[in-house]
Amino acid sequence: MSAHDPACPLCREPGGLPVWQDADWRVIRADEPAFPGFYRVVLQRHVAEWSDLDTAARQRGMALVVAVERVLREKLQPAKINLAALGNLVPHLHWHVVPRFADDSHFPQPIWGSAQRPPDAAALARRAALLPALDRAVAQALDAA
Amino acid sequence: MSAHDPACPLCREPGGLPVWQDADWRVIRADEPAFPGFYRVVLQRHVAEWSDLDTAARQRGMALVVAVERVLREKLQPAKINLAALGNLVPHLHWHVVPRFADDSHFPQPIWGSAQRPPDAAALARRAALLPALDRAVAQALDAA
Repeated sequence: MSAHDPACPLCREPGGLPVWQDADWRVIRADEPAFPGFYRVVLQRHVAEWSDLDTAARQRGMALVVAVERVLREKLQPAKINLAALGNLVPHLHWHVVPRFADDSHFPQPIWGSAQRPPDAAALARRAALLPALDRAVAQALDAA
Repeated sequence: MSAHDPACPLCREPGGLPVWQDADWRVIRADEPAFPGFYRVVLQRHVAEWSDLDTAARQRGMALVVAVERVLREKLQPAKINLAALGNLVPHLHWHVVPRFADDSHFPQPIWGSAQRPPDAAALARRAALLPALDRAVAQALDAA
């Protein structure tokens, strides 16, 4: 397992809007307009599986995931938070942290499932307006994590 | 947040084949014939979000998830492990631990996405034959976790 894989998109690019980073992890906001407030906690080096990390590294990664989750719950009051480490297409460890809302296009299905309804444009616009402040709150929480 | 919610299916029933449990967590094998070796790590009490748990409880839950993941990687050699805590339909904390294979019906899409091909009956039968021994290996790893 090399530190970087030149063929891996998450080794080459941030993978979204950079919000915070340290030597081991970065947090980006996903470019997913239908799911505002969707962040990813991405390992800086190229590792495929969660169990490839040692306990301390997993605890650090999960502390960052939880810090993001807490800010999303406080600022957006989602119906549910969805967490996932999948990586079938990009086997570079990253956690999806997704706030879900009863009006979102896929709720209660996972965002990878079938759309249940058209997106609610007014709700999306209202949440999109919160994103710059949300990014700052996420970065501040990660500094403290 | 009460300890049990009589309306919650994961408060009323194991939610799959019971494989292991202690006072705080249980591990079941999911009744998903298309995804053999799919386990769930389920909190015994009714809590919706991962960040509702304190750090020690999260570390314990994740140690169980990782123990299951390690057994699946060793015994099944999947293409990828998928981990997820979603709970939109059943907001009772549970982690999905899903071994994924290049021949499975949905790979590389998430199992909640669209089927990519018919299931490979021979591969499913081969893996199903491993499940009793896999359950025992999972239970043994959880005893040691």
